[in-house]
Amino acid sequence: MADELPDADTLRILILTDTHVGFNEKDKVRGKDSLETLEEALQIGKNGRADLILHGGDLFHENKPSRGCLFRTMNLLKQYTMGSGEVAFEVVSDPACFGTGQVNYKDPNLNVECPFFMIHGNHDDPGGESNLCAANILEVGGLCNYFGRHEDLEDIVIRPILLVKGKTRVAIYGLGNIRDERLHRAFQAKKVRFETPVDTEKWFHVMILHQNRHKGNKGAVPSKACIHEEMLPSFLDLVIWGHEHDCQVKPQESLRGEFYVMQPGSSVATSLSPQEAGLKHVALIDVKEGVFRCNPVPLWTVRPLVMRDIVLSETGLLKTDTQQKQKQRSIAKPKCRI
Amino acid sequence: MADELPDADTLRILILTDTHVGFNEKDKVRGKDSLETLEEALQIGKNGRADLILHGGDLFHENKPSRGCLFRTMNLLKQYTMGSGEVAFEVVSDPACFGTGQVNYKDPNLNVECPFFMIHGNHDDPGGESNLCAANILEVGGLCNYFGRHEDLEDIVIRPILLVKGKTRVAIYGLGNIRDERLHRAFQAKKVRFETPVDTEKWFHVMILHQNRHKGNKGAVPSKACIHEEMLPSFLDLVIWGHEHDCQVKPQESLRGEFYVMQPGSSVATSLSPQEAGLKHVALIDVKEGVFRCNPVPLWTVRPLVMRDIVLSETGLLKTDTQQKQKQRSIAKPKCRI
Ligand SMILES: [Mn+2]
Ligand SMILES: [Mn+2]
Ligand SMILES: [Mn+2]
Ligand SMILES: [Mn+2]
Repeated sequence: MADELPDADTLRILILTDTHVGFNEKDKVRGKDSLETLEEALQIGKNGRADLILHGGDLFHENKPSRGCLFRTMNLLKQYTMGSGEVAFEVVSDPACFGTGQVNYKDPNLNVECPFFMIHGNHDDPGGESNLCAANILEVGGLCNYFGRHEDLEDIVIRPILLVKGKTRVAIYGLGNIRDERLHRAFQAKKVRFETPVDTEKWFHVMILHQNRHKGNKGAVPSKACIHEEMLPSFLDLVIWGHEHDCQVKPQESLRGEFYVMQPGSSVATSLSPQEAGLKHVALIDVKEGVFRCNPVPLWTVRPLVMRDIVLSETGLLKTDTQQKQKQRSIAKPKCRI
Repeated sequence: MADELPDADTLRILILTDTHVGFNEKDKVRGKDSLETLEEALQIGKNGRADLILHGGDLFHENKPSRGCLFRTMNLLKQYTMGSGEVAFEVVSDPACFGTGQVNYKDPNLNVECPFFMIHGNHDDPGGESNLCAANILEVGGLCNYFGRHEDLEDIVIRPILLVKGKTRVAIYGLGNIRDERLHRAFQAKKVRFETPVDTEKWFHVMILHQNRHKGNKGAVPSKACIHEEMLPSFLDLVIWGHEHDCQVKPQESLRGEFYVMQPGSSVATSLSPQEAGLKHVALIDVKEGVFRCNPVPLWTVRPLVMRDIVLSETGLLKTDTQQKQKQRSIAKPKCRI
């Protein structure tokens, strides 16, 4: 799949999420990790001849990225999304959903070859006096198409972006992060509506959201502080789940078997948890008419996180042996690298 | 002059400085003043068919402009500098002086019709962990050409940007703000050097700087905390003085008669001083071969600042008359509007 151009009816999308650029940026050793992995992901999209990039939120780790972080991210987006290549798909929905009133590659003053689409996460959500987010700065700089912002929580109307490439029609429903309890309540109260294109069955329906995902009753999250797959409409074909850092990139059938769910996971470990320890991935998905194929691509720049259990009672240490405790500490340290 | 296209040998430059965008932005009445006047200035450049815009620093009032301020400024620059019109001059000096390695209108992925060039002021100077300034964000967004940054204060080498339009050759020497005492010392110690193009006499030499200006011994500024005209080299033809908010836009001959000095002044009053109370201006200058003409244009969006002296002893008030004092206060108030 990679290196070959997608055919005239195949829309190829680089899927990534939770890149958390700027995470730990003051750390002398790990400070550049998040940015390097963002670049690796963008490189995968370029080498893989993606038609577009779709980001699931938490692009930035900080709501107000540092100047250096914003600058370097803009530089990367400029490098990987602008160029003289042709965009082979059309946006046929109302471009008024974008802040600039048009999708960036239609701006006559910009040459965009691989447009970047994104929703916001909880880390980079809009707010403050201006009620803007970092994505708005990227947008006015011609570097992204920001969508999926819903301000009226009493009436959340999700209008898809409609993309057409040859015979393939893809509707993308964006839902930027909303506080989980509030969104849960809005779903329960039927205050979340999806607008669908006419000839609904001729479209491939993708939803991208950034919320806690219900993991059954085993999880620590109360069931009202997350979104259950069953709450999402059955006409969807594929749901891209952002916010969950665990990489479950291979599409899984939803509980009721109505759609697939893929959860790309974060591209940098932001916590010392087993969920962050697995191999990280992005994915290239090919949509051709009504079907899709997912090609997960591992990220090799990610710093390995190794977790191991130590059973103290088996170490032969005496509880009162201070010297041994010191020694044990120095042993335990390298076992938990991030 | 305005409304007519400059001829093929005339380089027309919109000159502005100290726009202090974001000044007082939380003020409910005056919050948008600085941005509105920036737009008025850009409009003057557009209507006046300027070939380029040259800004003398303090574009932003805050070193870290708020998100809304940055966003709206970027939006204005996008609106007024990008477009399908042709740029009628050439930059023939090494474009490595720009952070992106090229002047923005030469970027094949951008359509720039009226390029914006700027130096930094003391308000928007580079620093912090990244050692960047707000201008670098504009630059990576394709919205400005930032120059005149000198990092080695032991050896300040001012290399001009060389612009050619028809028979006219203009060399622009940029010097972004440096702490006045340090720059003064560097000049005295001959650590400031100017590189000039070959055939120096065939060029029109413009210097743009952002420093305290020596005003004789009457001023409050110690003479080592400012730059004296006599310190600047005599081959210059025109010096554009930023930082001084007083509008002295009409070019004045320097003390030794070697060059002209124009001081456009701020476009928003940032202090309650007589210097800020005059009518504000920007200027369109036409350079044709060795000569220039300056066309000052008043800014009408600037909120009038009226200053009047009140001699309390002439008001007929008794010192102990509290009621009268109250009354006087309510009279005095409207006399000092900003
Ligand atoms: Mn995240
Ligand atoms: Mn998140
Ligand atoms: Mn100023
Ligand atoms: Mn200043």
